Amino acid sequence: MKYSPLIQELVRALTALPGVGPKSAQRMTLQLLERDRDGGRRLAAALLAAMDNVRHCVRCRNFTEETLCPVCMDASRDDSILCVVETPADVIAIEQAGTYRGRYFVLMGRLSPLDGLGPDEIGMPQLLARVGSDTGRGEKVAEIIVATNPTVEGEATAHYIAGALAPLGISVTRIAHGVPMGGELEFADSGTLAHAFAGRRPV
Amino acid sequence: MKYSPLIQELVRALTALPGVGPKSAQRMTLQLLERDRDGGRRLAAALLAAMDNVRHCVRCRNFTEETLCPVCMDASRDDSILCVVETPADVIAIEQAGTYRGRYFVLMGRLSPLDGLGPDEIGMPQLLARVGSDTGRGEKVAEIIVATNPTVEGEATAHYIAGALAPLGISVTRIAHGVPMGGELEFADSGTLAHAFAGRRPV
Repeated sequence: MKYSPLIQELVRALTALPGVGPKSAQRMTLQLLERDRDGGRRLAAALLAAMDNVRHCVRCRNFTEETLCPVCMDASRDDSILCVVETPADVIAIEQAGTYRGRYFVLMGRLSPLDGLGPDEIGMPQLLARVGSDTGRGEKVAEIIVATNPTVEGEATAHYIAGALAPLGISVTRIAHGVPMGGELEFADSGTLAHAFAGRRPV
Repeated sequence: MKYSPLIQELVRALTALPGVGPKSAQRMTLQLLERDRDGGRRLAAALLAAMDNVRHCVRCRNFTEETLCPVCMDASRDDSILCVVETPADVIAIEQAGTYRGRYFVLMGRLSPLDGLGPDEIGMPQLLARVGSDTGRGEKVAEIIVATNPTVEGEATAHYIAGALAPLGISVTRIAHGVPMGGELEFADSGTLAHAFAGRRPV
């Protein structure tokens, strides 16, 4: 037996979601049909609204349906610090940590020449314009914190950004890498431990 | 920071899906926005179509957008055997096994008085009418296989169905319960082993 066509199409469409295979998609479909058709309709409406209206903040490239995202519009944030991250999810993680009060710049990716992602694709021209490299009329940014992921590509991106910003005389820093809080040395990998030792600080 | 409202609404709506918490919903949202807006739109359309048009087959109660589901419309199936299952997912599982060629009746649940699910809610009147209890003009069903789940409620439902069908002189059988194929005795629970011994058959 095949499912009826509409059910089949919904199961197939649900597998577009990350982490959802055919089995989960089937379970989701039946659950919505049996118990939560209103939830299914709400989800459809939310999907359409988001897919059609969410675009990039003109200032930090994060997702928003307005011209500026909530962080860029927040007048209480510190304009002198700019944190460069790879994705909107990174912004959310940092915001949830709750200690950073500066601005963001979202690369929407990382340098990855093999995938065709060069400086233009990660918004380097926009970042340089924002801190005033070409016009001299950029924001007054005193420090740029590069918080790309500690992966090979993330590190390469961080180095590239540091190099591109060096002529501007702005302090460029990198977030610390080491043993995570609550973690145990015993279970830390050697790369992390090496970083933790190299980045040691006076107590 | 909050997400922008549209993104927030999509994250919230995605948690209506079973097995999707706020973290997965956020990942799904960002993935769709970053890489697959068309997939998101297709999903929205599929959701709307299914939520609005899928109803129950008038004969077997399975989900379908037509009057009759594909199995009930299939003239090549054996009308003399009827398999009673709890949910549409059970039909799919049995169909995938590929050996059963009879018809189905889907209870869309199980007897559960505490949840307000009585005989009417699981379609007993419809099942009795279908096999001809009240009119004498029902289908020519020779055997009813009760394939409810081997849980407390599923067993109770099976007993109730067997009792209700007893006066009709139709053979009512229950699927076998025992050690699953490919499983090992060592890891079977005692209830399963007890069933396997009680249900032993000559080789």
